[in-house]
Amino acid sequence: MSFSENAESIEGLGRVYLVGSGVGSVDYLTVKGQRLLNQAEVVIYDALVDDALLEIVPADCLKLDVGKRGGKPSTPQAEINGLLVKYCQQGKQVVRLKSGDPFIFGRSSSEIQALREADCGFEVVPGISSALAAPLLMDIPLTDPVLSRCFAVFSAHEPELLDWQSLAHLDTLAILMGAAHLPDIIDRLIQQGRSPQTPIAIIRWAGHPEQQLWTGTLEAIVQQTARQALSPCVIVIGEVVRLRPFLRSPSP
Amino acid sequence: MSFSENAESIEGLGRVYLVGSGVGSVDYLTVKGQRLLNQAEVVIYDALVDDALLEIVPADCLKLDVGKRGGKPSTPQAEINGLLVKYCQQGKQVVRLKSGDPFIFGRSSSEIQALREADCGFEVVPGISSALAAPLLMDIPLTDPVLSRCFAVFSAHEPELLDWQSLAHLDTLAILMGAAHLPDIIDRLIQQGRSPQTPIAIIRWAGHPEQQLWTGTLEAIVQQTARQALSPCVIVIGEVVRLRPFLRSPSP
Repeated sequence: MSFSENAESIEGLGRVYLVGSGVGSVDYLTVKGQRLLNQAEVVIYDALVDDALLEIVPADCLKLDVGKRGGKPSTPQAEINGLLVKYCQQGKQVVRLKSGDPFIFGRSSSEIQALREADCGFEVVPGISSALAAPLLMDIPLTDPVLSRCFAVFSAHEPELLDWQSLAHLDTLAILMGAAHLPDIIDRLIQQGRSPQTPIAIIRWAGHPEQQLWTGTLEAIVQQTARQALSPCVIVIGEVVRLRPFLRSPSP
Repeated sequence: MSFSENAESIEGLGRVYLVGSGVGSVDYLTVKGQRLLNQAEVVIYDALVDDALLEIVPADCLKLDVGKRGGKPSTPQAEINGLLVKYCQQGKQVVRLKSGDPFIFGRSSSEIQALREADCGFEVVPGISSALAAPLLMDIPLTDPVLSRCFAVFSAHEPELLDWQSLAHLDTLAILMGAAHLPDIIDRLIQQGRSPQTPIAIIRWAGHPEQQLWTGTLEAIVQQTARQALSPCVIVIGEVVRLRPFLRSPSP
């Protein structure tokens, strides 16, 4: 048995890499993620993964889309788990490509459990989370020595499960999957004492060519974005949104 | 005037790239960060940046260490700002390499202000923040469908400035620069009602060959780590720490 060039895989043995895709193009993928995609035999990818990342795999790599795309339902988690185990047991180098970071709302635990139960070798490779990168790409820092000593990251697809009293008092919030509940999120924050004039930014498709940005205040943003498609987006709430004009690069 | 191969720089004009180095080796740098380092004429770097990243710059690249290393004081911020402007105005491609992500406790705003005032072209390139990557590399997810719907990231070098009442009630905390104040952090959380049995992990030098991990509970960790060097570390507090044994990869 010989070791491969990168000592990451052992010839003949399958292995699954849960890789964070970062945001958008290959530019924001890690060097390790790029190398693993360059060598992948099977890639199993989610809906928000950019097509550009699927262009760097070998020509004979099997590409499996398990995300919700074009109105089709996503593949059930148990089936995804089964695919990972199957190809690993066939001795393949499998990349499970997840948007952002695999451990930030990436539903990786279920896949890891399945791999462990089947005695499959695996490794988790971090990626740039859109929660952090989307604000940066829009010139909004999540921290600031004066305006933001702390930020919280959460998914708002089930707002009723969150502790809004605590969240309302943190300097900065970075919210994933919040577009559908935007009015509810804002109501809860204002009810807990957050000022209606608090700045908010909605960043859609960060890092992708079609990225869009809306900025406003808690009290005005819902009307301002009415009848517009906001998803998939990162919502940033806090005074740091006001820093944007001061941090933008002059052209070119 | 012609555009360079990557259309990122314009020949003859200097430009400053504030690049997040990620954690540890080149593996966790972004593809864009790697390309910029490969082409850099000047690199100005912080203390926590791994030496491996300085090995991928061209042989004639000027390397300037502005971080605290080996007991020497760090370079004053005004002086760093001056260096960025000076080399940019000389027409150089300058990489300002910061550990982790430039917009997460990266003190980038002051540098950006200086560059804007001098009309220097610049760009901010995201990196993997140690706050997120350190737990991942230690098999600890910051989110979980049941145990952690929310996490907060903060620096604890001045604990008295933080809202501990709100922080104590969030599922998971990822704390930077907390080693020196560990007993204080724990006292404040317990005073605000966090259980003394809450799990805690201290991750030192994540991603580097010398990485270390301690896990325990709020009530026991201080004694457990007494007289040990913990800095630089990421501290993770929350039930997610308990998931670690279930998410580790079997060898190899």
